[in-house]
Amino acid sequence: MPNQHIRPGDNPDLTKERETCTFDTDELAAHLYGWRSSVERRREITEKVSTDPHFANPILHEFLSREKRIEATAKKTKALVQRASDIVDVSNPQEMFHLVNEAIGIDGYPLALHYVMFLPCLTAQADDDLASEIIPRAMALEIIGTYAQTEMGHGTNLRELETTATYDKNTQEFVINTPTRKAMKWWPGNLGKMSNYAIVCCQLFIDGKKMGPHNFLVQLRCEKTHKPLPGVTVGDIGPKMAYNTTDNGFLAFDNIRIPRRQMLMKHAKVSSDGVYTPPMHAKLNYSTMVHVRAHMIYSQGHLLAIAAAVATRYSAVRRQGRIEQGGPEVQILDYQTQQHRIFPQIARAYAMMFTGLEIKDLYEQTLKGIAQGQADLLPDLHALTSGLKSVVSFTAGLGIEQCRMSCGGHGYSDASGLPKLYGVQIGGCTYEGENMVMLQQTARYLMKGVKWAAQGKPLSPSVAYLGKKGSPKSLIGLEGGDIGREHEVMLETLEHTARRLAIDASQLWEKRMKGGESKERAWNGVTVEMNRASRVYTRLFMARAFHRRLLSSPSSLRSVLTDLFSLYLHYECVDMAHHLLEDGYCKGGQIQYLKKCLYEDLATLRPNAVSLVDSLEISDRELNSVLGRRDGNVYEALYQWAKQSELNYTDV
Amino acid sequence: MPNQHIRPGDNPDLTKERETCTFDTDELAAHLYGWRSSVERRREITEKVSTDPHFANPILHEFLSREKRIEATAKKTKALVQRASDIVDVSNPQEMFHLVNEAIGIDGYPLALHYVMFLPCLTAQADDDLASEIIPRAMALEIIGTYAQTEMGHGTNLRELETTATYDKNTQEFVINTPTRKAMKWWPGNLGKMSNYAIVCCQLFIDGKKMGPHNFLVQLRCEKTHKPLPGVTVGDIGPKMAYNTTDNGFLAFDNIRIPRRQMLMKHAKVSSDGVYTPPMHAKLNYSTMVHVRAHMIYSQGHLLAIAAAVATRYSAVRRQGRIEQGGPEVQILDYQTQQHRIFPQIARAYAMMFTGLEIKDLYEQTLKGIAQGQADLLPDLHALTSGLKSVVSFTAGLGIEQCRMSCGGHGYSDASGLPKLYGVQIGGCTYEGENMVMLQQTARYLMKGVKWAAQGKPLSPSVAYLGKKGSPKSLIGLEGGDIGREHEVMLETLEHTARRLAIDASQLWEKRMKGGESKERAWNGVTVEMNRASRVYTRLFMARAFHRRLLSSPSSLRSVLTDLFSLYLHYECVDMAHHLLEDGYCKGGQIQYLKKCLYEDLATLRPNAVSLVDSLEISDRELNSVLGRRDGNVYEALYQWAKQSELNYTDV
Repeated sequence: MPNQHIRPGDNPDLTKERETCTFDTDELAAHLYGWRSSVERRREITEKVSTDPHFANPILHEFLSREKRIEATAKKTKALVQRASDIVDVSNPQEMFHLVNEAIGIDGYPLALHYVMFLPCLTAQADDDLASEIIPRAMALEIIGTYAQTEMGHGTNLRELETTATYDKNTQEFVINTPTRKAMKWWPGNLGKMSNYAIVCCQLFIDGKKMGPHNFLVQLRCEKTHKPLPGVTVGDIGPKMAYNTTDNGFLAFDNIRIPRRQMLMKHAKVSSDGVYTPPMHAKLNYSTMVHVRAHMIYSQGHLLAIAAAVATRYSAVRRQGRIEQGGPEVQILDYQTQQHRIFPQIARAYAMMFTGLEIKDLYEQTLKGIAQGQADLLPDLHALTSGLKSVVSFTAGLGIEQCRMSCGGHGYSDASGLPKLYGVQIGGCTYEGENMVMLQQTARYLMKGVKWAAQGKPLSPSVAYLGKKGSPKSLIGLEGGDIGREHEVMLETLEHTARRLAIDASQLWEKRMKGGESKERAWNGVTVEMNRASRVYTRLFMARAFHRRLLSSPSSLRSVLTDLFSLYLHYECVDMAHHLLEDGYCKGGQIQYLKKCLYEDLATLRPNAVSLVDSLEISDRELNSVLGRRDGNVYEALYQWAKQSELNYTDV
Repeated sequence: MPNQHIRPGDNPDLTKERETCTFDTDELAAHLYGWRSSVERRREITEKVSTDPHFANPILHEFLSREKRIEATAKKTKALVQRASDIVDVSNPQEMFHLVNEAIGIDGYPLALHYVMFLPCLTAQADDDLASEIIPRAMALEIIGTYAQTEMGHGTNLRELETTATYDKNTQEFVINTPTRKAMKWWPGNLGKMSNYAIVCCQLFIDGKKMGPHNFLVQLRCEKTHKPLPGVTVGDIGPKMAYNTTDNGFLAFDNIRIPRRQMLMKHAKVSSDGVYTPPMHAKLNYSTMVHVRAHMIYSQGHLLAIAAAVATRYSAVRRQGRIEQGGPEVQILDYQTQQHRIFPQIARAYAMMFTGLEIKDLYEQTLKGIAQGQADLLPDLHALTSGLKSVVSFTAGLGIEQCRMSCGGHGYSDASGLPKLYGVQIGGCTYEGENMVMLQQTARYLMKGVKWAAQGKPLSPSVAYLGKKGSPKSLIGLEGGDIGREHEVMLETLEHTARRLAIDASQLWEKRMKGGESKERAWNGVTVEMNRASRVYTRLFMARAFHRRLLSSPSSLRSVLTDLFSLYLHYECVDMAHHLLEDGYCKGGQIQYLKKCLYEDLATLRPNAVSLVDSLEISDRELNSVLGRRDGNVYEALYQWAKQSELNYTDV
């Protein structure tokens, strides 16, 4: 049986779906996760976590107060720290990512910032003296740290941070101070209650001169009593849309003093007599941001994949209404509108994960290049990750909501897992660079590309198409023909459109400048158009990345991935029809043809839909959804779930 | 000063915004709410509620567990019942709507279903005998009821409900039973803990014959102890995306017996010897659904208005980054991307509320017509409310999320009020008729219209345009010209597009039927296109409704409402550019012209943006947002809010 997920006792409607599978689900999982062995490892990790009583959920999070949730998560985190090296290869990020998702969940845990930001930042920026003292203590969890940068009044604009670190030559100390209410640190994860140390980003002042933002290691709480130190105000910022298991915090300083050597001085330095040495390279932290965004592309795709799995399985189990009079009630997955809501999300989830994997590889290559003194891949990578972070997070959010709504009323219940999933995922539009700002970063790079192309200069890979010339090719003539050729023509159509939008935006900008506006003011008058151009550039890259992954797939997967990619491309082209039509490159008849293809794709994919989400290898534990469970026995599970409601502890 | 909302101590950035207002905010409020006196009443109600200690919030909901929230809301509901007639004219739905929003909030209260469903349903469907006994007791709150229709396994498809009511001639009783797990009643509001009675929708069986769904009054809990009666299983279905103040419930019966006269027999009847009399009209409940949906259009617009008010005011107060080097940090409302996110939401909120008001009037007219034996307005109203319910709920959701994200990180905090607002609002896509089903209902009406138009038959007002013929008119020639004429040409363009999409969808349907598919199967093959046609029909109606409200506005508001309507139309046309371009009715150059107009509209509206949301007259209490407060003193308020977090009760 090519679908490996059939078990006795499953809902017969799901088994029926799995029996129509035309490919080997394990093989597709291997293509996604790298190797068959990676899939086996995923399953082993899932198995170990789910049978370990330390990771059990005696009461589901949904039924706990925020305080109790944090307590429960802290316990599991402790177990995670003790057991991780028994369960996974801790140096393998893919295994660690899966372990945390399985053992703790998707909405944060008390040591997330300690491991993801505090330790890496110390490693990258502390001088040897400080590092050798503090890193071993942090590794041993004698101290727990976080990274405090964002303030109440300033997020994206670091240069305006208000917290000050003023050097006092006499005592060889820095005085750390929060001068105004809106200068309070606000949002850092695990800052509210958990951490006793933080790396704090402050404006450095020496002899009254402002030297810009620098990082300092600051103790916040007593290591013994965990009470805040004198002069330190610290607490939790309260409940949020999601991540309520995380104690995002606030922090203010009333002129507290720290020794000079607690400035992170691997790059910039302040000598004991107050002489400032700037860092060798101004943008040495650049690659950390890029790294986080590169990872986000994959993980956001993974969150959409969870939603798609829930919606697809539930739609195969749920029966409602009739298509033909007199027939039985049909699986709602048979309705075209339902397929049109859900199947593009399956395709997009795969596209995002494939793109994320490619971007992670590009990141590794770029790092290697930098180590050898070649940073020429970095601008491309920066523009791509900025654009992708924005497009992927926004599109994944829309997709999760479509999946949730396609589950009807039950999708609105926390039992579906989807409200929390959306809350967690949609944060990605805002953190690590607000999406509108990200798209403008990409647009600035595109504008350089347009200029270089016009000057005949060499172009980096992601913008090479800006230097090409395309002539319209009809898609309709290919009907019933070569699907590979059809894909290529659609990709060329997207290339043309991405190029035209970039050039149009560049000309609008020029025009405003010629009209007398400053470069910056003119930019602000065309940013909506610039962002449109950035989105199409990004969506072109994603389509190309999916296409590369299709071409590199084993022949046994070629058919199903071709169907999925066709659906993806048709959906993308119809979604961008406005741009395709605007300059006459495509005619209306072609768009109508693409829609016809899209509706045919929905029907073609129908027998493999459940198997495509089975191949994502998301365990029931990670799925955390009564509606999406592998066995499809939804209704009884829904009742058992609801009985746990705190309101049902008493009858009255 | 034309803006009436300036007070001493306000954030100077907000005062500056209000000083650039070009119209009288009280006059616009009066145009929205009907009369100046309605605005005065709103303010009086707000004042009375906010100074009444019974409605005070000693601890904000955000910081309470679900159980405590429900307790707090129950107390306020008790006060509401006692005081409502002192505060408002209880027969005025507009005043009652405002009172509930102010006193309790937006996410439900324990008597919502009692007043909105239980009592009206008894009034409409119980026979005089039962009504005279039960309604006075319900009015006096001696009993509290809800309406239990939806089951775990069936939402939209009433005919398949599984709960049975089997008539026992010997005892003259009905036996009420829940035959399967998925037949449990699931979702009814206030069912879990609050209600001791329910109207339960059951399949009626007489002598083994199934007579379809009918309503029965069933006692669920002891009136004294509030314990569930023997044979009744009832409880809370657990936490949801929002409405967590409401105890949506489950309910199952184990062959309990109720007297014959507890069937609601005003229309259908069962005699003591088991003779069934069907109702006079099969669709007598039709108008209740239409009524609820008609109200939803306005109230969904109101929820979007709240989000737009928060985002606009906060964006005037928040300063971040620079447009020109060397300048001061700018209000983020100066960024084109920020205006492009928020201003269309202001325009759409007004459009939705204006449309909602018109639909309420149409509903009243229709009711009057029905009372006089004329039901000819009902099909139009039904198609419109179905389409509007769907388009408005989905568009409002997208808009609220744009507003939330435009507030950056703080929009993700519950302090903004926006996460809960979205959770409450987005439920509207699912309840009272799932949106995809709603759009298909509208499409079925459109298909009738297309047929009638082809046959030259008379057409109802909302589809009259199907019988017209339009020829393309260029918008560009009107540049700098008559704005009224420009609006009319855009509306005609939308009319053409709505007509073309309906006709195209009808032809696709025909083609499939000619190809041998049954009517129903062919329909399922074209529903995505059908739904596209329904959406454009609906959006055309909204644009026309806004236009009518503009034309009926006092001359002093004409300028600002013209600006707002221009923005609305340009945004709608650009958003639907794909459809405008597809058949060549519009050329690409026209769409680019519309975009240029749109960007100019954003700049034009900028000085009135804050004043437009001030005119919505939403009090700080109703806004429930630290970011949106009238005085703009956001940062200190954010700190005071966060200090209430339960995690801050102790230092450690």
